[in-house]
Amino acid sequence: MAKDFVTRSENYSEWYNELVVRADLAENSAVRGCMVIKPYGYAIWEKMQAALDKMFKETGHQNAYFPLFIPKSYFEKEAEHVEGFAKECAVVTHHRLRAKSDGTGLEPDPDAKLEEELIVRPTSETIIWDTYRGWIKSYRDLPILVNQWANVVRWEMRTRMFLRTAEFLWQEGHTAHETAQDAIEETNKMLNVYAYFAENFMAVPVIKGYKSPNERFAGALDTLCIEAMMQDGKALQAGTSHFLGQNFAKAFDVKFLSKENKLEYVWATSWGVSTRLMGALIMCHSDDNGLVLPPMLAPIQVVIIPISKGEEQQAMVDQEANRIMEELKAKGISVKYDNRDSYKPGWKFNEYEFKGVPVRVTLGARDLEQGLVEVARRDNLTKESLPVEGISDKIEKLLEDIQSNMFSKALAFRESNTRNVDTWEDFKVEIEKGGFLSCHWDGTPETEEQIKQETKATIRCIPIDAKEEEGKCIYTGKPSNKRVIFARAY
Amino acid sequence: MAKDFVTRSENYSEWYNELVVRADLAENSAVRGCMVIKPYGYAIWEKMQAALDKMFKETGHQNAYFPLFIPKSYFEKEAEHVEGFAKECAVVTHHRLRAKSDGTGLEPDPDAKLEEELIVRPTSETIIWDTYRGWIKSYRDLPILVNQWANVVRWEMRTRMFLRTAEFLWQEGHTAHETAQDAIEETNKMLNVYAYFAENFMAVPVIKGYKSPNERFAGALDTLCIEAMMQDGKALQAGTSHFLGQNFAKAFDVKFLSKENKLEYVWATSWGVSTRLMGALIMCHSDDNGLVLPPMLAPIQVVIIPISKGEEQQAMVDQEANRIMEELKAKGISVKYDNRDSYKPGWKFNEYEFKGVPVRVTLGARDLEQGLVEVARRDNLTKESLPVEGISDKIEKLLEDIQSNMFSKALAFRESNTRNVDTWEDFKVEIEKGGFLSCHWDGTPETEEQIKQETKATIRCIPIDAKEEEGKCIYTGKPSNKRVIFARAY
Repeated sequence: MAKDFVTRSENYSEWYNELVVRADLAENSAVRGCMVIKPYGYAIWEKMQAALDKMFKETGHQNAYFPLFIPKSYFEKEAEHVEGFAKECAVVTHHRLRAKSDGTGLEPDPDAKLEEELIVRPTSETIIWDTYRGWIKSYRDLPILVNQWANVVRWEMRTRMFLRTAEFLWQEGHTAHETAQDAIEETNKMLNVYAYFAENFMAVPVIKGYKSPNERFAGALDTLCIEAMMQDGKALQAGTSHFLGQNFAKAFDVKFLSKENKLEYVWATSWGVSTRLMGALIMCHSDDNGLVLPPMLAPIQVVIIPISKGEEQQAMVDQEANRIMEELKAKGISVKYDNRDSYKPGWKFNEYEFKGVPVRVTLGARDLEQGLVEVARRDNLTKESLPVEGISDKIEKLLEDIQSNMFSKALAFRESNTRNVDTWEDFKVEIEKGGFLSCHWDGTPETEEQIKQETKATIRCIPIDAKEEEGKCIYTGKPSNKRVIFARAY
Repeated sequence: MAKDFVTRSENYSEWYNELVVRADLAENSAVRGCMVIKPYGYAIWEKMQAALDKMFKETGHQNAYFPLFIPKSYFEKEAEHVEGFAKECAVVTHHRLRAKSDGTGLEPDPDAKLEEELIVRPTSETIIWDTYRGWIKSYRDLPILVNQWANVVRWEMRTRMFLRTAEFLWQEGHTAHETAQDAIEETNKMLNVYAYFAENFMAVPVIKGYKSPNERFAGALDTLCIEAMMQDGKALQAGTSHFLGQNFAKAFDVKFLSKENKLEYVWATSWGVSTRLMGALIMCHSDDNGLVLPPMLAPIQVVIIPISKGEEQQAMVDQEANRIMEELKAKGISVKYDNRDSYKPGWKFNEYEFKGVPVRVTLGARDLEQGLVEVARRDNLTKESLPVEGISDKIEKLLEDIQSNMFSKALAFRESNTRNVDTWEDFKVEIEKGGFLSCHWDGTPETEEQIKQETKATIRCIPIDAKEEEGKCIYTGKPSNKRVIFARAY
């Protein structure tokens, strides 16, 4: 366990906060609720972006950019949306500062008050659908498959780095379609992209499902989501994909001439993931020794640390290190050779362990004389001596093993913490233990709300692959035909 | 010349505005001064970003992300900076909207007035140097070489898409160094990166130079810039790199323990380019037929358009197209095969010409029977019949030719529109013709200001490679030892 570092069992919440700072991922800024994403944290986010962006493009999407500001009146146009998003937000009221008359500083210039306030976008449906009105005339203009990488602001009262911040980075896809069917297919397609990314890049197993009406996006007819389980048994929503029906098309009057020559409202979807994924990544895998990163998203996949005495040994170690680096780079593996002499090997071991570098190779002069190197893996903290001959092939294989092992471990954890619960008495006991409770529910918002009031548990999702089965609602005893996932959530 | 499209000589300004919209690059949004960057325009920006980001990383920089909002008081800390940036800006005063009591909509909630107003960043020196205070303790923490890709807002009164918008996208590098010398070297290094990018990717020749004190960044000791000439003879500043001295370190109290064990203020640089580069790219190369893109930044480098009658011909053409596409893709060339039958070949020719696709390949069934294809280049609008055999090698070479031809053409234009001017009478005449005037100047802000008042010309830069020569100021006749570049500018 890392020195002076709180353990997960001592205080999971503090463990997370400290880890984020000590692993150089992010820190709180002087601006309430806004974080600074530090270079090491940002490098992970860049790898996430690159992988997702590639998948978006492979599924036919293009990037674009829409204004940061949204006129206040736009939020008034979609009734549910205004409830969900136009409340806690950053409101721009002036476009100029002036010197105060008493010389003590600056103040908003009353002469520069905006006629209509601007809202810093909390999400961009309104401004984008206002724009789409000009882009869409006929079915030939459809589908529009656009994504935006952007910052958004929601004035959260209680913030935590990556998990819930006033400003965060995300992507938001906004698509326009001829038919409901096309839009629903898009909604599903993008949910599958998110699930693939979570499981194959982040090594985070997710449950795909539908949100209950209470938890739907404001303005959506249906919200699909992927839900992951953190090590404290709480759920984290890792991505959402919304079928918006014709709500925004109606609010912004976006119609098209159909193949049948009729004017119809356009069908919409939106979908997004954010820097929240960083929180999921950290909380799913990391341990009491610090960060644990899956190779697919690690900025440094392999670190090589030399141990030598004297120039002769050093020259030999350097030569081997360079050879191994060349081989690894040729395989597309990112590798760092840390031969700084200002830090001792032990310090470096701790440093890269804490930062979650998947594989550490120690090149010791004495080992090398016997043709051996020490290879340590971060995920399970094991190490072994291996022949230096063919080491790069071994490392390549090892990275794949680590990636799949991390996923399997997280999946096993989720499975061992997911249980069917069939009585309200059991529910109240089980929810305290954490994890996912698979239960029958009568399908009403009232029941969900009651359960939330009494236990702080919400319906995380109605799994897409939920089996049809006869059952009785855990709370009301009314009939139900499938189980849903209840949990406490981030 | 494209149909219904104004020419450069008729109205250069209108030509530009129309081109931006008709080539699907961007459009004005409903939010004053903010534009929507459309997918085709954004794809060019993404190529710019990718090339620049690679160069930044190759020169040792890492990306990070800092808050969108800056507390008002931060601007008060650096005296010159506040003058330059805290005037026309977006001021956030409230963090909540509430329903109006008369039910007519939303208004800022008086209970949610911020204690201190937040400014949407016009540039991030202040928030970043406030953060660096926590990162820098000793010389071992230096240099810090950080870049941020972000949106910024400056409340410009008169806006033009890409050239001057209230919100724009940019990158801002912010580095911290032990010595003035290190910081100055960084300032120069990044200017060279910008110049290399402009000339080798954008095919835009630039003059590297120093800004006069009047034109310096607010808070900088020295501002270096690259200046380009547009086709109307006006100058466009395409990138700046600032040596900030210890101004921000002093304003935000950022000190480090030096190797000599002394507490010293840190030395700073900042440097940036923005979506303004899109404006430069468009205005430097495009013509009365639309956009002209250099191959290095064209989202589609080659378009293939089939011409056939009947299924048999179509099958043959498709087969050839697929073969050529495979070969081009293997060379890393982006190619689009537009075989839509909803549009005629002539329509497609116009479309891709207007969008500046560098090379068009027409695959006609009859030509193919003779083993020929027609290859048209966008830059000089020439076309030729070439053997289909080995066509992908020819196209590869052609793209290189186009790239270098575009640069040469722009350079020749700049050279033929740059003249030495030695009398004030000549200056007043010559400045009306446009172009760069290379003149002696007495080095005083007063003279520069006078010249600006009388002619709207400013000193674009004092070229880095300006020859030492005896001369007399164009305006005052006072002695001068080098020529500077005067021009009217965007």
